[in-house]
Amino acid sequence: MPTFEPQDPDFEMRVRASFTRQKVMETIGASLTRVAPGEVEIELPFRDDLTQHHGYLHAGIVTSIVDTACGLAAMTLMPADASVLTIEYKANFVSPATGKRMIARGRVTKPGRTITVCAGDVVALSGGKEKLVATMLATMMAVRERPDLPA
Amino acid sequence: MPTFEPQDPDFEMRVRASFTRQKVMETIGASLTRVAPGEVEIELPFRDDLTQHHGYLHAGIVTSIVDTACGLAAMTLMPADASVLTIEYKANFVSPATGKRMIARGRVTKPGRTITVCAGDVVALSGGKEKLVATMLATMMAVRERPDLPA
Amino acid sequence: MPTFEPQDPDFEMRVRASFTRQKVMETIGASLTRVAPGEVEIELPFRDDLTQHHGYLHAGIVTSIVDTACGLAAMTLMPADASVLTIEYKANFVSPATGKRMIARGRVTKPGRTITVCAGDVVALSGGKEKLVATMLATMMAVRERPDLPA
Amino acid sequence: MPTFEPQDPDFEMRVRASFTRQKVMETIGASLTRVAPGEVEIELPFRDDLTQHHGYLHAGIVTSIVDTACGLAAMTLMPADASVLTIEYKANFVSPATGKRMIARGRVTKPGRTITVCAGDVVALSGGKEKLVATMLATMMAVRERPDLPA
Repeated sequence: MPTFEPQDPDFEMRVRASFTRQKVMETIGASLTRVAPGEVEIELPFRDDLTQHHGYLHAGIVTSIVDTACGLAAMTLMPADASVLTIEYKANFVSPATGKRMIARGRVTKPGRTITVCAGDVVALSGGKEKLVATMLATMMAVRERPDLPA
Repeated sequence: MPTFEPQDPDFEMRVRASFTRQKVMETIGASLTRVAPGEVEIELPFRDDLTQHHGYLHAGIVTSIVDTACGLAAMTLMPADASVLTIEYKANFVSPATGKRMIARGRVTKPGRTITVCAGDVVALSGGKEKLVATMLATMMAVRERPDLPA
Repeated sequence: MPTFEPQDPDFEMRVRASFTRQKVMETIGASLTRVAPGEVEIELPFRDDLTQHHGYLHAGIVTSIVDTACGLAAMTLMPADASVLTIEYKANFVSPATGKRMIARGRVTKPGRTITVCAGDVVALSGGKEKLVATMLATMMAVRERPDLPA
Repeated sequence: MPTFEPQDPDFEMRVRASFTRQKVMETIGASLTRVAPGEVEIELPFRDDLTQHHGYLHAGIVTSIVDTACGLAAMTLMPADASVLTIEYKANFVSPATGKRMIARGRVTKPGRTITVCAGDVVALSGGKEKLVATMLATMMAVRERPDLPA
């Protein structure tokens, strides 16, 4: 895996502040558990009120945490004045999103001035073991003219 | 656009029941506003606690409603004993998800015994005008061995 | 469907020249059959030397023509000095690519200064009837610093 | 990375025969360079008659080799009587497909009785160094009723 050099030494602070501004993350109970250059991890405890018709976490909720993990992974490598927008993503759902909690991991595949491509995975944690739930490929865009909301 | 003939005359009742079992839909405040052969519509009023860092609805929430609209559109054409699972989807986000409310429309592109391909759109409604927010292409699977949860 | 106003009145000439520079199009025998604002059509007669293991046209060949149709559809709406690059695409394959010839249709879903989102379809033509073979969602980028090859 | 146990001890012979039946692979000059359980590698020397308008290999050609690599990677884990079909894929193009030759690597992310999810990469080789050109996420289906063409 490539190693990346952040442009902004305060990238972690900036990424944590952006996560906090994502109100939906608090609403669903997600927390930011790791920020490194080109990599971000988000955890989500299972919650019955976020499920679909089989009692698993809804694909859209699984997608929410891995999209945010990918977007923030891209943001770790962006300049201090850039904000990040999701242009598009694709996700495959390979096992039921069930278990004690989910961990979403986003990482940068290819950084760029405008476009950053990221890959992400979501695993379900149960009894100390990880099982792959979903895998994502995402295209993120650095935007200058559209800053994050004021805190 | 093609017209479709449902295999199960009670498809609407079945689809409405499946929507009700998706607890996350109630949690985010979505409602099922239209069910027709091969087409389903879901509405979601804007809510501040579902937003991302710019104050728009989070991409994952936008995805949740259009994924459910696509999955249920596929289900309208499935036999009475089949349940539906999302295998994968891709979504492009083309405008900020802001406005009074979102309408997600899912429709079947190609039905199949095992695999059904669907397309979906999300529009934002403001002042009586629609603006495209997101567009999706999704692959749905009919499953027999995994019924919906008991009501 | 939205109607689009090209920025460059000579868009058709520019798009036709770009198609001609795509040597692979000649190699596989594809021709450009329609250019309109936001819409492009490409035809490909079936050829046995382009097939996969079941004797259908290979998914990558089907993708080639609809990718070019989408890219050129995006290009119809770009300024005169812009070239187009495919950032990413997704395609679903819904029927075997067999028949006398394929028609790929690309159209702009959402134009933009940097990013243009397109949708495309490929149909197989046999006995005067069309059958959907593949459907695509693509993200195109306008590039200024990387012009087309000299003719 | 997970290790996989093939169901069919003759998987390599079966995969090599299927590659040979893909006439397009010969047409573009691709060769099968590695077959292992859940992993397949295909090489393609650069050829000027496969290029797009900037003189790079066309995205559809890049996609062809990584689609075949992913499909055959899935096939290594399928039973002896199964053939493989591409349901859908998504690819991101991250650098120009230029250089002496391309190597496409497909690997199984999640095998399944009906559906197998694969990931693939294409790298360009120049001066002994690899550069990532494209990355793919693909959904493959095992089909029993549609055998490969007779040799």
